[in-house]
Amino acid sequence: MKNILILGAGLSSSSLIKYLLDHSEANNWKIKLGDVSLAIAEEKISNHPNGKAIEFDIFNELQKEEEIKNADAVISMLPARFHPLVAECCLKHKKHMLTASYVSPEMKAMNEEAKKLGIAMLNELGVDPGIDHMSAMKVVDKIKAEGGKMLSFKSSTGGLIAPEYDNNPWNYKFTWNPRNVVVAGQGVSQYIVNGNYKYLPYHQLFSRVETTSVPGLGEFEVYPNRDSLKYRETYNLDDIPTMFRGTMRRPGYCKAWDIFVQLGMTDDTYIVENSENLTYRQFINLFLNYDKKLSVEEKIATKFNISMDSDIMHRLHWLGLFGNTKVEMKDATPAQVLQKILVDKWVLGENDKDLIVMQHQFEYEKSDKKYRITSSLVVIGKDTVHTAMAITVGIPLAIATKLLLTGKINVTGVHTPVKAELYEPILAELESYGIKFTEEKNEL
Amino acid sequence: MKNILILGAGLSSSSLIKYLLDHSEANNWKIKLGDVSLAIAEEKISNHPNGKAIEFDIFNELQKEEEIKNADAVISMLPARFHPLVAECCLKHKKHMLTASYVSPEMKAMNEEAKKLGIAMLNELGVDPGIDHMSAMKVVDKIKAEGGKMLSFKSSTGGLIAPEYDNNPWNYKFTWNPRNVVVAGQGVSQYIVNGNYKYLPYHQLFSRVETTSVPGLGEFEVYPNRDSLKYRETYNLDDIPTMFRGTMRRPGYCKAWDIFVQLGMTDDTYIVENSENLTYRQFINLFLNYDKKLSVEEKIATKFNISMDSDIMHRLHWLGLFGNTKVEMKDATPAQVLQKILVDKWVLGENDKDLIVMQHQFEYEKSDKKYRITSSLVVIGKDTVHTAMAITVGIPLAIATKLLLTGKINVTGVHTPVKAELYEPILAELESYGIKFTEEKNEL
Repeated sequence: MKNILILGAGLSSSSLIKYLLDHSEANNWKIKLGDVSLAIAEEKISNHPNGKAIEFDIFNELQKEEEIKNADAVISMLPARFHPLVAECCLKHKKHMLTASYVSPEMKAMNEEAKKLGIAMLNELGVDPGIDHMSAMKVVDKIKAEGGKMLSFKSSTGGLIAPEYDNNPWNYKFTWNPRNVVVAGQGVSQYIVNGNYKYLPYHQLFSRVETTSVPGLGEFEVYPNRDSLKYRETYNLDDIPTMFRGTMRRPGYCKAWDIFVQLGMTDDTYIVENSENLTYRQFINLFLNYDKKLSVEEKIATKFNISMDSDIMHRLHWLGLFGNTKVEMKDATPAQVLQKILVDKWVLGENDKDLIVMQHQFEYEKSDKKYRITSSLVVIGKDTVHTAMAITVGIPLAIATKLLLTGKINVTGVHTPVKAELYEPILAELESYGIKFTEEKNEL
Repeated sequence: MKNILILGAGLSSSSLIKYLLDHSEANNWKIKLGDVSLAIAEEKISNHPNGKAIEFDIFNELQKEEEIKNADAVISMLPARFHPLVAECCLKHKKHMLTASYVSPEMKAMNEEAKKLGIAMLNELGVDPGIDHMSAMKVVDKIKAEGGKMLSFKSSTGGLIAPEYDNNPWNYKFTWNPRNVVVAGQGVSQYIVNGNYKYLPYHQLFSRVETTSVPGLGEFEVYPNRDSLKYRETYNLDDIPTMFRGTMRRPGYCKAWDIFVQLGMTDDTYIVENSENLTYRQFINLFLNYDKKLSVEEKIATKFNISMDSDIMHRLHWLGLFGNTKVEMKDATPAQVLQKILVDKWVLGENDKDLIVMQHQFEYEKSDKKYRITSSLVVIGKDTVHTAMAITVGIPLAIATKLLLTGKINVTGVHTPVKAELYEPILAELESYGIKFTEEKNEL
């Protein structure tokens, strides 16, 4: 018998938990699920004979020690900043650990120790990061093995609303953490095109947009996603002339979102005076120049040189930004107020299904010919529990846990799934869950 | 006999040192000037019989103790982050301390202790902060004393090149720390107009520009200067409907500088790859989209919708930004590279004189009538040593030191010169140095 400890029973854990419970009988597993809310953990375990829900507090040292000591593998679905607390305890008791999060410097520093102890610390096993790495590396490794030379790698991902339920003018609903959507892209974004480094400040991000098309889904906008340069090392493509990672939105979204960025409404670094008593209309007016001759709408139209009946203005109106609803949040930052306004409008409906879309574009040279492979993934959620996000974050992590506990994966130390021994078996099983890329290859 | 210790013999100390040496005989002072460079300190003391230059290292604890113990007053002209190191030692040995810098939270926290010990810690005694506070409070206090009600306070300051030496298309040269000019305004700026709070992100700063006119000097642009709101408390104007502080530049500067801000060339948070081998032309191209059909110049003209022979393009050309000069700086941030490019071009000539310009606009109501007082200060440097900047930073600080040591100022604790007992005698003596505001009053 093996014991699996899952920490964190939030939305993105649901498919992970279901997979492990579904496979628990055959593998002789006991699954313990800890969350700050016992009720939420109990709901997810749903009286499964091999499952047990517990109230879990990461700051309760005694409990943390006890639970980790009794586990064979620990899956941390806690906020990423807590992973090192879990990891240190896993090292102490020689337990495997898995996460869907980026490897932090603290985690990276545990590599030698984990190797010495013979335990695996597997990270970036979700969708982005996760499936993106695995699917990209599979194609890159194949191209290289066949003697091809990589010229360009572009990759983009979007967490969106499925077409059937896409019924608002932004073509967007919150399918994951709203806060991350509001502050997305802050800082500098960097990439390289034909050997030319490109640096993009946040306030230019939503105006430097490319478009792409995904079979069966239609057109998308893509805006640069933070530091693409570091993926040259991650993917072992140090000398590649073009490397770009982006985020996908439906056409028209970026231009409208750019209004918020331009006005400073996504700033999370300072508190707005008297925020609780402002109306939405007064809130947006904080960021517009003082001009008593013009209405708020007119000031926006003038500043951005758009007409009063433009698509952008329609999107802003639809959010209620020009109305007199009260903010009713004390000591809020602009980003927090904006998030509140959006959460009311971009809420997932009870029967809505979400969408994960991912597309890689590989260009390479072989025997004096140039080729492009376009590889696309479309995943639509089953319901509001097993969303596309929960499925694509949780299933690869669950598969990795199974492979690790059954000895099909034999690695020690801190890893991400960029090596064939990790991505091959995980991708193979993901296909049976409908997580399968379609590939198109063209000579250029 | 009194001993005065001056720490820091940089550019902005020259007029301070001269004043104190000039007044040393009459007041029976000995002036000790410490700097990391003994040569620079010696040059400033210039063998004056009451002066002594020493090599001084703020991290040499023994030396710090010894020198402060022997002084009656300590003037710190060191970088502001070092003031607390000096201040703690002043507290320990019960010595007065003076600076031209903003009161930091650490300094503020020493107030009670300084009061108890009966020593004065006087700060913000330069030009901005310094003369701005004193001149503003004098008018505000007078308006209030006469029964007026303040409606609006707007104040702006510029450190510029004197008109006679203003001979480049930017109408700007570096008359103080270039780095501060390059990164000026980063973060959010905030002010209030007729009761409406206004928040401005950095990337909007140089497009929300007002213009003003100064008698004898002509037109200026004014862009918002960080947090104007906190000055409501500083100036005891908590309920004032309009409060705005700005920075002055010559017309056309802001639109051209905005190109750098928009492109992200003033970012100081990350290092550009391979910075040392880039040409200026390649440097600016880092921030432009990839488009092999357009030249760098064409990309800028297109992006900002300006013509190839516009004033803005002329300013960029004049800086050599489109040329092939090498950056030759390793591991540099965009802001550091931009600073290097500017320093070569905006350098003060050997015979150049600088300019400090300051203007306050007070609006108030009295007996059902409304008035506006416009108060302007123009100071032109004497030469490249006694610049307008050195004079306006150093003389108020020197005067305050004299008043403190001669018992004309009797305060204890941490202060800024917003009270009449401080600003009255300092402003009075400043007039004899030509630092005098001209006032214009109009009924509205």
